[in-house]
Amino acid sequence: MILLLFSFIISSINILQILYQTKAMGKGLTSRSENYSQWYNELVVKADLAESSSVRGCMVIKPYGYAIWEKMQAVLDKKFKDTGHVNAYFPLFIPKSFFSKEASHVEGFAKECAVVTHYRLKSSPDGKGVVVDEDAKLEEELIVRPTSETIIWNTYKNWIQSYRDLPLLINQWANVVRWEMRTRLFLRTAEFLWQEGHTAHATSTEAMAEAMKMIHVYSDFAQDYMAMPVIMGSKTESERFAGALETYTIEALMQDGKALQSGTSHFLGQNFAKAFDVKFSSKEGVLDYVWATSWGVSTRLMGALVMAHSDDNGLILPPKLAPIQAVIIPINKGKDPDELAKVLAKANEIYKQLKDAGVDVKLDDRDNQTPGWKFAEYELKGVPVRLAIGPRDLENGTIEIARRDTLTKEISSQENIAEKIVKLLDDIQTNIFQKALDFRKNSTHEANSYEEFKSLVEKKAGFIWAHWDGTRETEEKIKNETKATIRCIPFDSPEIDGTCIVSGKPSKRKALFATSY
Amino acid sequence: MILLLFSFIISSINILQILYQTKAMGKGLTSRSENYSQWYNELVVKADLAESSSVRGCMVIKPYGYAIWEKMQAVLDKKFKDTGHVNAYFPLFIPKSFFSKEASHVEGFAKECAVVTHYRLKSSPDGKGVVVDEDAKLEEELIVRPTSETIIWNTYKNWIQSYRDLPLLINQWANVVRWEMRTRLFLRTAEFLWQEGHTAHATSTEAMAEAMKMIHVYSDFAQDYMAMPVIMGSKTESERFAGALETYTIEALMQDGKALQSGTSHFLGQNFAKAFDVKFSSKEGVLDYVWATSWGVSTRLMGALVMAHSDDNGLILPPKLAPIQAVIIPINKGKDPDELAKVLAKANEIYKQLKDAGVDVKLDDRDNQTPGWKFAEYELKGVPVRLAIGPRDLENGTIEIARRDTLTKEISSQENIAEKIVKLLDDIQTNIFQKALDFRKNSTHEANSYEEFKSLVEKKAGFIWAHWDGTRETEEKIKNETKATIRCIPFDSPEIDGTCIVSGKPSKRKALFATSY
Repeated sequence: MILLLFSFIISSINILQILYQTKAMGKGLTSRSENYSQWYNELVVKADLAESSSVRGCMVIKPYGYAIWEKMQAVLDKKFKDTGHVNAYFPLFIPKSFFSKEASHVEGFAKECAVVTHYRLKSSPDGKGVVVDEDAKLEEELIVRPTSETIIWNTYKNWIQSYRDLPLLINQWANVVRWEMRTRLFLRTAEFLWQEGHTAHATSTEAMAEAMKMIHVYSDFAQDYMAMPVIMGSKTESERFAGALETYTIEALMQDGKALQSGTSHFLGQNFAKAFDVKFSSKEGVLDYVWATSWGVSTRLMGALVMAHSDDNGLILPPKLAPIQAVIIPINKGKDPDELAKVLAKANEIYKQLKDAGVDVKLDDRDNQTPGWKFAEYELKGVPVRLAIGPRDLENGTIEIARRDTLTKEISSQENIAEKIVKLLDDIQTNIFQKALDFRKNSTHEANSYEEFKSLVEKKAGFIWAHWDGTRETEEKIKNETKATIRCIPFDSPEIDGTCIVSGKPSKRKALFATSY
Repeated sequence: MILLLFSFIISSINILQILYQTKAMGKGLTSRSENYSQWYNELVVKADLAESSSVRGCMVIKPYGYAIWEKMQAVLDKKFKDTGHVNAYFPLFIPKSFFSKEASHVEGFAKECAVVTHYRLKSSPDGKGVVVDEDAKLEEELIVRPTSETIIWNTYKNWIQSYRDLPLLINQWANVVRWEMRTRLFLRTAEFLWQEGHTAHATSTEAMAEAMKMIHVYSDFAQDYMAMPVIMGSKTESERFAGALETYTIEALMQDGKALQSGTSHFLGQNFAKAFDVKFSSKEGVLDYVWATSWGVSTRLMGALVMAHSDDNGLILPPKLAPIQAVIIPINKGKDPDELAKVLAKANEIYKQLKDAGVDVKLDDRDNQTPGWKFAEYELKGVPVRLAIGPRDLENGTIEIARRDTLTKEISSQENIAEKIVKLLDDIQTNIFQKALDFRKNSTHEANSYEEFKSLVEKKAGFIWAHWDGTRETEEKIKNETKATIRCIPFDSPEIDGTCIVSGKPSKRKALFATSY
């Protein structure tokens, strides 16, 4: 706004250019220690990932942010297909009556639904703008899908007659809407993008195995690609998906010590099959209801990615998901055009070598921005590797290599540069993961009493292991008094006898608590 | 339904199996000559491309149909990126007031909008189901996007200050909703999937060049991948996009002689920049409104693909977009398990050779379906090449190759099979295109009088070239009297002096007419 105002008055190109540069360079990020939440909000916007739109709670995913999402999608989509799934597309709208068919499902989603009631606008009587045409009222209201179990199981009803039609292994990439009252970019938005898998099986065992397989797919993706360590486990009854018999989750720890639920996979039993009357005849000719799973991850992963790794200078992206893995910046302080031409020729040569080695490389040869401006820009945007090359490097056969994760740089020979960078990208991927893993290790504690538990929560201590008596009441009490919730009962937590930190009743296994997003 | 009913009574596996097979095999397609429209509707459903959902006018895109759409998306997305575009995502909802800002735009879309008025449901007073919570009424209604110019230009306002921010070359893959009263699978549905490009430029010339570039991208895609010849041209004023100064189109001819508008690219001038006050300062420091284009293709292309090539036996898919390019079917009439093992071993060997050569190949070794059933199934689904191999082929070193496009088959040596198939797929791609081109040639006529014109339209003659005086009145009169519309003024139509077939006024160029979808 101020920029626009200025530009009315000042027409000097130079001054405009400086203003423009200041705008882009002016990181001025709030530090994480100062205000983590504000740091996150600012970073998402300044790094051009996303911004709030004019529609309450809905975001615009900007090209740079969307490019990361596209990389995530490509990897996930391949993993789904490699595990036998196919994609399909189901309607955006769900008839209101479908919702009521599964009791706990409607209970879970009714309070946050966008409802379509009319299908036409008309000119307003005063001639200014348009109003809803009351004559075009829908007989039955339509809900903008918050998730698609109901519309999909209503469809599966026609697709499944026999055991031969099973399993049905389908995934959908789609937008969904949940009318959240308090929203934050990526983490909680009224509209978000996601994928939702919906599978149908002949047996309970097979469906449970599918739900388990998919939470492992998510875990592998989070760890191998996002470089984000996660803990897999089961949700407690009160934290399950609305309509599920069992919810598996992957939980990641953010740098402020809060957990973030990053993906879930649900064993739905026969609930939706019963609600929509989906039966199949078995090999033996016996009719039974079909068994179901659903599983999903969303653009929330973008928020997790930002919060898991980034620092006060900006984003830190894992190389495997970075839209630009390496950027080459030519240096020409002397402003000698002949020298610049030589530098550019060499920069292009190296660009080609990296490209041929499969690196997503960018050569930033813009002459209207200084190298310093560019350094700051790519640091903010989390580009893993920055290469700078100038006249002196031409003489010496060298190039400067800077790592975003450690903020270190070194002068390297130009020889085998592609090979070096490919290896460096691998190292960075590993290092980022290890750093996050160390952080989680240091932020995971055990509480042997409720006092200790409360004190740990207050210190934002991250994950807390504690014995719990397995009751909804105790879980509720802890949540109300400390805001910490049971993130999951991890699959690999050992059986250890103990007593619940609140009730003193016997417990056979510790649960994993944290405050969360 | 009937199947389900039967299965309650009859539990014999064999009978169920026969019923199941009959269901899948029972093409019983209405022929094109009998009822083209019904042939299309049946084919889309029977070939498992899509079906109607429980939501009026909304379709379910089934896995096989979606796999074709995914191939289309991949090719188009690459073409967009190769021409400098990036993807982003904008909100599903558009505030009602945004709509009114561009006068002709709201005029064009207001009558077919899904309107969100509430954001919450609650339990109904009678305890049965849910009702809209009247306390949760939105202050301003939200429109489910029918297209995104308004929300995007409202966003661009904040992204564009200087000529340095231009051009902005952004594409979005999304779902949109237009509340059509008469819908048909793929061709006209209330919700459909599409991509919409929205670009911003510093000059009119640049924006016009962009609009022209993108219609060429669409034309290349249609011809090179869909094997569907198209005619590129400009729409007349009355057929332009709501808010555009110029609309370019690609028009394809279906087998019933009707034209199908398959993609459009719009030069929007400064209309949306003015409506949303989007200005930029030029190099010279002068403020001006930004110039715009938008362009899109949708799942309607799926309908075009089906109608352009398929026959009374089912789909005919161009190899470049076929999810399965070649299918291998093992034959074992003698039911000898040893022999079958040998046949399967050879089939697997050939499968691997084709796979390695980059062919999307499927080996259908299911033993619960007969080869005859499989032949019919893949014919219906338009798989370009079918390979069958049996015991005799093992002895002779041969394999049977059948082409879907010509329905011919030949016995070939197994030698260099991958090479042969790759070449055959190319031949089929070319042949399908040539066939469609020949059809269009034979279905394109010139009308030198209105009488001749009317008679041609009655005979469903396809494209009709005719002189037109350039007025909206004459265009309207022809449309009302014959249902034929001007599909476009083709870019490459020569200047020829003549007189309008209706008004007798002078005309410098012929227009291309047809009845259309």
